[in-house]
This record gives sequence, structure tokens and C-alpha cells, in this order.
Amino acid sequence: MEQMKSKAPQRTKKPLPSLAELQNGILKNNLALLSRAITLVESTRPEHQAVAHKLVEHALQQKTDTLRIGITGVPGVGKSTFIEQFGKMITQRGKKVAVLTVDPSSSKSKGSILGDKTRMQALVQDPNAYIRPSASGTSLGGVTRKTRESITLLEAAGYDVIIVETVGVGQSETAVHDMVDFFLLLKLAGAGDELQGIKRGIVEMAHAIAINKADGPNKKEAARAQTEFARALHLFPPKENGWVPKVVCCSALENTGLDALWEMMLAYVKDSKASGYFTDNRSQQNAHWLHQHLEHRLVSDFYGHKSIKTVLPQYLREVTEGKTSPFAAAEALLQRYREE
Amino acid sequence: MEQMKSKAPQRTKKPLPSLAELQNGILKNNLALLSRAITLVESTRPEHQAVAHKLVEHALQQKTDTLRIGITGVPGVGKSTFIEQFGKMITQRGKKVAVLTVDPSSSKSKGSILGDKTRMQALVQDPNAYIRPSASGTSLGGVTRKTRESITLLEAAGYDVIIVETVGVGQSETAVHDMVDFFLLLKLAGAGDELQGIKRGIVEMAHAIAINKADGPNKKEAARAQTEFARALHLFPPKENGWVPKVVCCSALENTGLDALWEMMLAYVKDSKASGYFTDNRSQQNAHWLHQHLEHRLVSDFYGHKSIKTVLPQYLREVTEGKTSPFAAAEALLQRYREE
Repeated sequence: MEQMKSKAPQRTKKPLPSLAELQNGILKNNLALLSRAITLVESTRPEHQAVAHKLVEHALQQKTDTLRIGITGVPGVGKSTFIEQFGKMITQRGKKVAVLTVDPSSSKSKGSILGDKTRMQALVQDPNAYIRPSASGTSLGGVTRKTRESITLLEAAGYDVIIVETVGVGQSETAVHDMVDFFLLLKLAGAGDELQGIKRGIVEMAHAIAINKADGPNKKEAARAQTEFARALHLFPPKENGWVPKVVCCSALENTGLDALWEMMLAYVKDSKASGYFTDNRSQQNAHWLHQHLEHRLVSDFYGHKSIKTVLPQYLREVTEGKTSPFAAAEALLQRYREE
Repeated sequence: MEQMKSKAPQRTKKPLPSLAELQNGILKNNLALLSRAITLVESTRPEHQAVAHKLVEHALQQKTDTLRIGITGVPGVGKSTFIEQFGKMITQRGKKVAVLTVDPSSSKSKGSILGDKTRMQALVQDPNAYIRPSASGTSLGGVTRKTRESITLLEAAGYDVIIVETVGVGQSETAVHDMVDFFLLLKLAGAGDELQGIKRGIVEMAHAIAINKADGPNKKEAARAQTEFARALHLFPPKENGWVPKVVCCSALENTGLDALWEMMLAYVKDSKASGYFTDNRSQQNAHWLHQHLEHRLVSDFYGHKSIKTVLPQYLREVTEGKTSPFAAAEALLQRYREE
């Protein structure tokens, strides 16, 4: 979608608000301007990126006290209903909630993005909630970078809790885990035990596992799964900060267990703030962000360079035609880049 | 391990053979020199990398006619027994086989690498087979790049079939799929049907699925799984080249079904060479390789730059202490890099 945009820039006719307007709009939580700002962050056009950087830089200077929660789970686990109920519960407690979805598949069809938005209807209508389906680029790295920047804007806009939703495919979980304070894994009782081998990495990242759909006839099975998971989690080494991941049962449908889960998160935050881990962790995440941003800039500056843009197609042709090796072509391109 | 090496360079006492010796050694399939060359490819030390690039460049100039096969499957599916039997069958047909394992976990303990080697004892002793457990770096990107380069050396050394083994975790499959001609997924009957949702991406990449361990009492179940998978695969869009992925049953233990699988691969190669797809696909893979190599070089040149090495720790400290933002720090570093 982004690529389409850059090919047809005339599509965005609305004049760009000034930097000051956008900055003030974010601070005042003006939804139109906030959304516009996130769109700029998600844009790949250099002139948009320049503004986006300034917006993020400005947002980073705001003092905020927020909680960033990553929520993952395979399709069918009931993520949207869960997030909707969980989000409503948080706003009822007087906090403002923003939800970002990081769905690698959502870039494929605009339909699914819109579908996503109508999914959480009640939360969309809540004045203290903001839902943003991420119009991701194709690369997961892009989603990551932009999600992180969007979090910053949402925090500056006054959201207390930022929920980043992701689908249980592995790669995006690591990325999201790296930008949140608390990582929650949603599971169903009785589903996919063979799967543990593969999802081990995700289980290891989780601060808590919530067995969702623990309602009606599923209750007993869910309680058993809870015991099993709790036992299994004890086999993992404890987290850096000594936290032992918890397992809870909940039902988004019957709205049970969500309060307890929220209390657990608050207890986690309290503990990890007291120990200094909360801040340390965010600092490490910032260092990681620095590296990611640097690497992204190095690569995008290269491909965006006029002279490289001109000669790259020719080198690519020579490589695909077997006339030169990928190695030799890369060296020649780097040489050219360095000389200019 | 590589990092340890670079901290204690005195560990590698053996003098480095000359470039010409290594190049000739590869062409003559001198195993000691070939192994040494692959070790250079896998090394992160700049002086090793310089030699490695020349070796790969030289190897790329050799005309070869090879088949690159990617084999994946979750732990427990019987990959090593399968590869051993499959490899032996190929050497019995007068072809030379090289096996590269891309196991992200293998970097953790030297034990598992050695364990890997003894795993395929009969194949190791086969004079027409070469097994190389990849002493991977920690980053998957590194594994990819180095595996690709190692393939080139093995092909120049005269191996007709290169098998790249990987574990079914998702990310490495995409990387390996991107450097082979044929991608084979090993499965077990009856295991992990819930898993299809997650592994869909891998299933989509496969040119064939082999239901392994189709022996003894498992035979019936395997045949049923074969029918089911074949039906399911028909629901995916056909591959670019019109190939409809096949499902076969085999038993590495009883040595059944492997011949048929090999014949199928040969038929695939024949077809896709006739249509031009085989060459087109390799060309595209080379273009992708160019990009990967470029991006790697851009980033590693930056971090390897003297002045960046000197000031980076200070910027990282400022970022983690919250004195500057990741953005501002990155821009300052890039500015400095550009000026020098």
C-alpha cells in the first residue's frame, strides 16, 4: 500500500498540517492530527519521514508514565474479543488505552484492516480508547520500527496503556517483546500441545499466559491446562528480574479473570519499578532501537542515493544474467557510493 | 564461538594457506582445504572475510550443474536419519552429495555440533559425501549469508547435490528457501494438525511434503495423512512455475519411498529447466543475494569504522541514560560517519 502511495502521490490531496500543528495536536490528543502523525510515521516517503522524525523526537521529550503491553496468540484464540474487553476494563478504571495491531498479513488486503477496526466496535466508541490497525509495510523490520515510533506518539498524546497486538508467528513476537514492558501470551486449553516445541521461544518471552475462553464447558479443561502450564513454566529459568511467569484463566466472553490479570500486571510493574528493572529494560530497548534505526538509515540512505538509484538496475541485470557475481556487483556499488 | 576466536586470535596457530592453494584445493575437492575455506567464509574477522570473498568470487566463476535441496521439519521428525539414507541413495547413483546444516541452536554448544556430525556416521564415511554442520553466528542473517557462500564453494568442489538442512522454526526456512532449487518439508502422520495455521508459510514454500516414518504400524496413518495433505495443498495457489506440490510417504528407517522422491525431484528439475524457470529462479536468488550482501556490508562497514567504534559506546550510554533519544543519537553518529 505504501508503495502504491509513493507511485501515486497525488492521491493524498489533504495539505500537510505544519509541524507545530501536528506537535500540538498530539499533545492535545486531537485524534485527526494524531492519526495523521502516525500515518506520517508509517509513510516511506522521505519528506514524510523527515517530519515524522521530528514528531517522534518531540514526543520522546514528553515525560510520561505508561505501560506497554504486548499481546500475542495464534488466530482463533480470541485476541480481538479479549483486547476489547480488557481495554474496556482498563478505561473503566480511569486509564486511557491505545491499541496497535501488528499483523503481517494485514498489509495484503485493505479489507482485513477495516475488518479489524469494526472487530472491536465497543472499544472504538470508547472516548478513552484509540485503535490503530497498523498499515504495515511488507517487511517486518518496517513494522517494528514504525510501531515503536507510533507508541511514542501515543504516549505523548496521553495514553496510559499501549497494547501492541501481534499474531503468533514467531518473528513479530520477538520484535514486539523488544518494545513492551509486559508480554502476554493467549492460549486455549487443549489446543496444540505438539506446538510447544516450536513456540517455546514465545513461551519463554511471556510474562504471563492467559488461558482464554475458560467459560461454560471449557472451564474444567482450562483449569487443568493452567496447572500444566504453570508446572511447565517453572522448568524455564526465571526472568532476568526474577519474575516467575504466571498462568491465569479468563473468559473475554463472560468477562471473567480480566481484573485479576490487570492486577497482576500492576503488581509486576510495581515490583519491577522498585527493583529498577522497569527502567533498565526500557533503556536497553532504547539502545536496541538506536541500532535498528542506524541500520535502517544506512540501508535506506544507500538505496535512496541518486547515483545508486541510477546504476542499481544495471547491476541487478548483470547479476541475474550471470554476467557478474553478486559479490563483485556489491563491491562496485559500494565503491561508487563511497566516492560520491 | 567466533567472538571468542577474535578475542583470542592466538588460538588459530595453523598458518593460512595461500589464496591459490585454497582455490586449487577447492577445485580438487581437497577436504582439508575445502573445510578451511568454509571456516574462512564463516569467520567474522575482516582479514578472513577478504580471503573468503575472493574464494567465493573464484568459485562462482566455475561452471557447475548442481541441485540445491532445502530440507526442513520440526525436531523429532527424523531429519538426520532421512538425510543420511537419502544422501547414501544419491551417492549410490553416482552423484556427490554435500550436507550443510543450518541449526540456529547449534551455535550454543560445541557438543551439539559434534553430536550432529556423528549422527550421520554412514554418510560421513562415504567418500562421495561431505557433511558440514554450520558453526553459525548468532544472527540468522549471518547463517544465511554464510550458507549461501558455502554452497558456492561446495559446488566448485564438484558436489552435484547440496542439501541444506534446517529446523522448522520459520525464519530460517524462508532464508533457506531463498537459496535452494527444491524445498522439502518432512512431516509425521497424525502430529500437529493445529500447527498448520502457524506453519502455513512453510507449507506454502514446499515443493514436496514427505510423510516420514511411514513404516510398521504407522503405514496406514501415513497413507491417510498423505491423502489429506495432498487435498490441502490443492487449496494453495500453484507455484510460479505451475508446479503442484506433491506429497509422498517414506521411511528412512526401512529405506522406502526415497527413490521415488528422488525421481520426483529429478522430474521437477527437468521440467523447470525446460521452462526456463530453474535458471530464472537462480537469477532472482542472486539478485536477492546482492541486496543482502550490500546491506550487510553497509552495516558492518559502519560498525567497523574506527571513529564509530570510539564514540558509539558514549552515545549508547547517553541513550540508555535517557539523556538523548535513539533518533538524535543515530543522526549524530551518521553525521560523523559521513564526514569522515
